[in-house]
Amino acid sequence: MLERYKLLKEYAGPIDLKYMSYQELINLAEEVRDYILEVTAKNGGHVAPGLGVVELTIALLRVFDPPSDVIVWDIGHQAYPWKILTDRKEKFPTLRQYGGISGFLRREESVYDAFGAGHSSTSISAALGFRKAMDLLDQKGYVVAVIGDGAMTAGMAFEALNNAGHLRPNRFIVILNDNEMSISPNVGAISTYLSKILSGRFVQETRQRVKRLLEHISGVSRIAKLTEEFLKGLISPGIIFEELGFNYIGPVNGHDLQALERTLENIKSIEGPVLLHIYTKKGKGYKPAENDPVTWHGVAPYKRESGEFIKKPSPPTWTSIFGKAVVELAQMYPDLVVITPAMREGSGLVEFSQKFPERFFDVGIAEQHACTFAGGLAAQGLKPIAAYYSTFLQRAYDQVIHDIALQNLHVVFAIDRGGLVGDDGPTHHGVFDLSYLRCIPNMVVSAPKDEQELRDLLYTAINSHGPFAIRYPRGPAYGVPTEGFKEVPIGSWEMLVEGEDAVILAVGYTVYQALKASEMLKEEGIKVGVVNARFVKPMDDSMLAHLCKTYPVFITVEDNVIVGGFGAGVLEWLSQKGILKRVLTIGVPDRFIEHGNQNLLRSLVGIDGEGIANRVREFLRPLKSSELHIL
Amino acid sequence: MLERYKLLKEYAGPIDLKYMSYQELINLAEEVRDYILEVTAKNGGHVAPGLGVVELTIALLRVFDPPSDVIVWDIGHQAYPWKILTDRKEKFPTLRQYGGISGFLRREESVYDAFGAGHSSTSISAALGFRKAMDLLDQKGYVVAVIGDGAMTAGMAFEALNNAGHLRPNRFIVILNDNEMSISPNVGAISTYLSKILSGRFVQETRQRVKRLLEHISGVSRIAKLTEEFLKGLISPGIIFEELGFNYIGPVNGHDLQALERTLENIKSIEGPVLLHIYTKKGKGYKPAENDPVTWHGVAPYKRESGEFIKKPSPPTWTSIFGKAVVELAQMYPDLVVITPAMREGSGLVEFSQKFPERFFDVGIAEQHACTFAGGLAAQGLKPIAAYYSTFLQRAYDQVIHDIALQNLHVVFAIDRGGLVGDDGPTHHGVFDLSYLRCIPNMVVSAPKDEQELRDLLYTAINSHGPFAIRYPRGPAYGVPTEGFKEVPIGSWEMLVEGEDAVILAVGYTVYQALKASEMLKEEGIKVGVVNARFVKPMDDSMLAHLCKTYPVFITVEDNVIVGGFGAGVLEWLSQKGILKRVLTIGVPDRFIEHGNQNLLRSLVGIDGEGIANRVREFLRPLKSSELHIL
Repeated sequence: MLERYKLLKEYAGPIDLKYMSYQELINLAEEVRDYILEVTAKNGGHVAPGLGVVELTIALLRVFDPPSDVIVWDIGHQAYPWKILTDRKEKFPTLRQYGGISGFLRREESVYDAFGAGHSSTSISAALGFRKAMDLLDQKGYVVAVIGDGAMTAGMAFEALNNAGHLRPNRFIVILNDNEMSISPNVGAISTYLSKILSGRFVQETRQRVKRLLEHISGVSRIAKLTEEFLKGLISPGIIFEELGFNYIGPVNGHDLQALERTLENIKSIEGPVLLHIYTKKGKGYKPAENDPVTWHGVAPYKRESGEFIKKPSPPTWTSIFGKAVVELAQMYPDLVVITPAMREGSGLVEFSQKFPERFFDVGIAEQHACTFAGGLAAQGLKPIAAYYSTFLQRAYDQVIHDIALQNLHVVFAIDRGGLVGDDGPTHHGVFDLSYLRCIPNMVVSAPKDEQELRDLLYTAINSHGPFAIRYPRGPAYGVPTEGFKEVPIGSWEMLVEGEDAVILAVGYTVYQALKASEMLKEEGIKVGVVNARFVKPMDDSMLAHLCKTYPVFITVEDNVIVGGFGAGVLEWLSQKGILKRVLTIGVPDRFIEHGNQNLLRSLVGIDGEGIANRVREFLRPLKSSELHIL
Repeated sequence: MLERYKLLKEYAGPIDLKYMSYQELINLAEEVRDYILEVTAKNGGHVAPGLGVVELTIALLRVFDPPSDVIVWDIGHQAYPWKILTDRKEKFPTLRQYGGISGFLRREESVYDAFGAGHSSTSISAALGFRKAMDLLDQKGYVVAVIGDGAMTAGMAFEALNNAGHLRPNRFIVILNDNEMSISPNVGAISTYLSKILSGRFVQETRQRVKRLLEHISGVSRIAKLTEEFLKGLISPGIIFEELGFNYIGPVNGHDLQALERTLENIKSIEGPVLLHIYTKKGKGYKPAENDPVTWHGVAPYKRESGEFIKKPSPPTWTSIFGKAVVELAQMYPDLVVITPAMREGSGLVEFSQKFPERFFDVGIAEQHACTFAGGLAAQGLKPIAAYYSTFLQRAYDQVIHDIALQNLHVVFAIDRGGLVGDDGPTHHGVFDLSYLRCIPNMVVSAPKDEQELRDLLYTAINSHGPFAIRYPRGPAYGVPTEGFKEVPIGSWEMLVEGEDAVILAVGYTVYQALKASEMLKEEGIKVGVVNARFVKPMDDSMLAHLCKTYPVFITVEDNVIVGGFGAGVLEWLSQKGILKRVLTIGVPDRFIEHGNQNLLRSLVGIDGEGIANRVREFLRPLKSSELHIL
């Protein structure tokens, strides 16, 4: 595949960069972009972020010497050029494929990947850890964190800046890669502040303020002139960072390789921590991505010429079902409001945000704040829906417990991307939520079997009291026709298929898979019932009591880790009732699951129809009839 | 009790304040301080924070009209004057006692308590929620958040400021109560910045910079004079807050009631969000607390005259055992480092911080950063111990999963205050950690039965690989003599007492209680074995297999919620092995547990010796011998 890339083909590693002319480097940058587009057109992936940092990557590799200098990329979805130019140009075509290289940084993958990350805003903290460790170990290298302006709004990044500004380490550089973007267009005061800097408005406005003040003093045109001179010395555009103890440098054009290099070289000798502010264009070099960086942040496979996405015909996604339902519900409930931490597009909330701008709150990458903010809205009597990805809700865990559940506030958590998410891999799988939510008092924890039930659970949640979580998978739903809303009694399960030999209690995505398994087993003469356990908490006491009498064994299935998950809940229930019953718990095993095609992963861990059927068959085989008695 | 308080005795509620003269208010403030000291001397509690905000509380109640104006106090441990002056002066003597009023704010307790909180830095988020809800509901009141300078270092507070500065709501006031303190002396760049403001150094330094610049221009003494004039208009001392979209006002002396009131009245008409910076003295009015506000942040009962603590003779606390062990280990392992998010005193790290200042990192109230920072230290080869309270580790949940466990980094989590903590109540109980940690792959989760085992587990953890959690309770340990360190094979349990009728698998604090229960039952002829299940994860496979063969029933005991906890782990293990076994799971029930004496609470939920004995007796009674067969 590399044959057609003249420079890249011969490229042997970062050392080569130091011997190339600027013209060659510019050509190489072009090849890298080309290569990224070729591979992502086929595999999908994060396109726009990587295209924006090709020059930065080259500059970093020329000015610094990783791995002895440590470069920590925030999130890591911007690191495709890094992967290609360090040591993975050959493997790059396997990007995001099962067994192939990850779409993010990964320590196991390369010595160049100093610190893995799929969630944002961790880089400054990690880098500061490297810095202090190197100081203690008397290692001289530089430590560089590269963080986007979007990631800068997260509290964690601020905590790290605050700590670094206090410790004032040398050889510590934070590069703020400012493209006025995160995944969604940025919101928040910091973002406004940064764009003021980029547009030069900070210094301009300050100048204006001075001039206005001076107008009241006579004969001061000369002073006004002087003022301009010293203002640059007096007021740094990055005064917030200066006040936090950093040396602010910038802004610098992040596509001007020579300027970047020169600046980085100069910075090396500055004492104390440095914040280098660069500006780049997200999607640089590929028109469709430049024009619509939000869409092109992360994409499915596409036709490179037209930028047209290769869409396999598939039913609407869970996300879009949620987005549509929430618009309908908002029309019915004027007190319904929606909060998202920077996931407007990903959570299906574009239409809602347009139709109900006053009732829509994108708080930026700020998961902790989003949750407690929702708590405040609920405390004053509104009905907030807080839309999170399962994996990001982990960031608000304390707030869910302490600010919402403890006060029994009526916040609905719409949790997208529950279960295995596929290509994004272990940083993004939403496989812990049932465990970490189930142990919180007052929480209702639910998962719909299909799109109509998602609507119904939302409706139920809105009309409920207290905290209510609904989690649903990434990807297409089933194409089940949807209409209206109906209330689902809280804690009620649904008997879908009666059986004899065993009953499967399935949650969310796995319900339809359990039905498939039941079908398959039926053909073999094994009669297995299926229950839609749509509430993981509370459980359906009366149905469980009934099932205990009618089925010799239970099988639980969930796309959550088995540890502490729904299956554990069933075991707890049985133990509390003093009932002895054989239970097979099927779910995600106790290890981090790699990236790869979503359905492939589901099949590998055995939670698809076939996998469930296999496990059930195997489970039932050795059970002697004597053990199949009903207790 | 109120008899001796001349003004307070007659005081009927906030409306009274509006009719009092300043002299009366000053006298009332004195009485409130007096009353706080009288009650806390008996009950213990947070002394210094409340003493610092008596005038602020009075000013807020005079200028605003809660509950229609919403006042959100951060953390709430500063709200004793608030409780007294709103509607709980009679109940105040029941402070922190079981059935009495809470040491923090609590919505259930009073309409004046707008939002509960025991963890810091949530107030701005919650207040912004109230504000936006009131805007949508067309309610005109004001919303005020009162937050300490310590709490301001947490990322969550920054996220909220960033969002508020963007939304720019009116009638929204953040009062930064600056006492240059959190629980420990503050660290971090923001803290340095704030003290620069308080000392007037910000404006001074800027002036100096201007003067130096102007010196190079001739005949500018007049300009220099003018400069001073306009500098106040040009550069706000609170420029960070100004840049974030807030109107910065201050600093104002928070003990000058008239100045406070006048400022608050003026602020009411300012458009957009306001940050009012006040400075107060923590412990104001009580010399021992003024002189040592760190100690007097929260205290046990004391003699008021001398400020001497009434100490019941008791064995060293778990905290101090940890503190001592970590100093000894640091002498053995030069690569051992310790991180704490603002809990130096509470985590027993004062000695360590003094002996090994280079290897000690107090990062401020910044739980997320603390964790990932530890990850960076580990990634570069050091052995970090991250010391958290169990309840605060919830704030770093995502970082534990995503930055530490996923990368299998060798970070030791020393988790203090696991289980029921007592007087601080539901915001501080550490009863979820076994559940939320157990479901994370790669984690070792352990709990020592006594102080020697705490040492041994620490030693084991330091010599291990990957993430390793050790959780231990608040309060005194047992006085077991300690000496040296020995390695505990990971996953190994310890058979303490053999029995016949049943075996108790106990974790951490509950091990000695299980031994007591076993003793008690023995006298009744019931022979119950006891196992020290010091590893919640991984479990001791071979011992479990052996126990299955030798005991008819299991009892699990833990000071964690039953849902998803250790007991659930045992049930999972049995189910995976296909073993049917009656198990009684004892632990904290699925509801939030109130505040009260620690041992009282333990007894109420039935995890002390007697409680365990009762439950076991009850459990074994109805079991027919036919059910007691070994499967």
